[in-house]
Amino acid sequence: MNNKLLCDIGNTNFSFSDGKKISVEYFDIASIKEKVYYISVNDYWEKRLSMQENWINLRAHLDMSKYYKTMGIDRMMACEAKENALIIDAGSAITVDLVKDFKHIGGFIYPGLRALEKCFKDISPALDISFNFDIDLDKMPKNTKDALSYGAIAPLLSHIREISKNVPVLITGGDASTIAPLIPNAKIEHDLVFMGMKKILEGKKIC
Amino acid sequence: MNNKLLCDIGNTNFSFSDGKKISVEYFDIASIKEKVYYISVNDYWEKRLSMQENWINLRAHLDMSKYYKTMGIDRMMACEAKENALIIDAGSAITVDLVKDFKHIGGFIYPGLRALEKCFKDISPALDISFNFDIDLDKMPKNTKDALSYGAIAPLLSHIREISKNVPVLITGGDASTIAPLIPNAKIEHDLVFMGMKKILEGKKIC
Repeated sequence: MNNKLLCDIGNTNFSFSDGKKISVEYFDIASIKEKVYYISVNDYWEKRLSMQENWINLRAHLDMSKYYKTMGIDRMMACEAKENALIIDAGSAITVDLVKDFKHIGGFIYPGLRALEKCFKDISPALDISFNFDIDLDKMPKNTKDALSYGAIAPLLSHIREISKNVPVLITGGDASTIAPLIPNAKIEHDLVFMGMKKILEGKKIC
Repeated sequence: MNNKLLCDIGNTNFSFSDGKKISVEYFDIASIKEKVYYISVNDYWEKRLSMQENWINLRAHLDMSKYYKTMGIDRMMACEAKENALIIDAGSAITVDLVKDFKHIGGFIYPGLRALEKCFKDISPALDISFNFDIDLDKMPKNTKDALSYGAIAPLLSHIREISKNVPVLITGGDASTIAPLIPNAKIEHDLVFMGMKKILEGKKIC
């Protein structure tokens, strides 16, 4: 079981459980002969891989009734990984999902940090800065760079504090290491999506 | 004093205290002969109007040491209006400033609602929606439209709750009427910038 090859296909990358990350633009299907258990938020690749015998889409094995129809399959898999948690996936968007007793209570979507920087820049050239989170979030900012950095993260942190009472906060995604130090007791778990995929594989005995 | 003509020049509009709103692109200086007391965040117009005898820039009459250098003059004027308040200006950006004992404690900048909609759309076409704030913010969302609407506003509201203890919350700007109903006890004050400008005029006896 531990050696099964898993793959999480996003909009820009194939991420494999053996650590490989390959751009969706440069991926050669024929280069992989072994069985791959995958999920994909990328329609093009999901359709293309459905014609490959050795690529097994785990979407078909998930109880979709636990989630809402347009929710990303990667978010669902991260939720499958835990019995009780607030799961933050900090990527191009930041998704925040609450799971209690293996049930998805609901979740919200906040812009990713790069998207927020671009958003401020699009509002006005005067707001074109790179965030600096090495600031004292207990003090109201007194310059533009801090005002934007604080504005990007302090509201999100306040809300996470409110909704994470009595559940562990787990963070995954490319910006996990930026956000985790700002949340007391938050834990980075980079492999949350793969953990969920493994649970589905084991539970359904698809091996 | 009450009849003095005031003008707040933004990036897209001239807003006059007599209720007129004129696009910066179509403004004819010669159409106004009377004295105008103005502020401008728009460098081009600030420079152009400095050559007009009947246009008096209130920037020169403000004690700038109370604020930080790159802070917008409109934000400063709104802060001048009150002794104690959390002042939210919900426009193309949402600025949130804390004033205590006539002192600017600090402030942060959050994207405006239209900017946030565009931000989500830029992340993925799947996130291209119009916000709907007629949702129950005490429940975690269970569909994409609600997840984005909630994500845009619930974090900001949580943070405003945290920092507005013991001060009234006042809201101005184009999206004031959208945001105010979501904040208990918040009050809309459309003329906060003009109120600040009037205080400067009266205090400095520039009439």
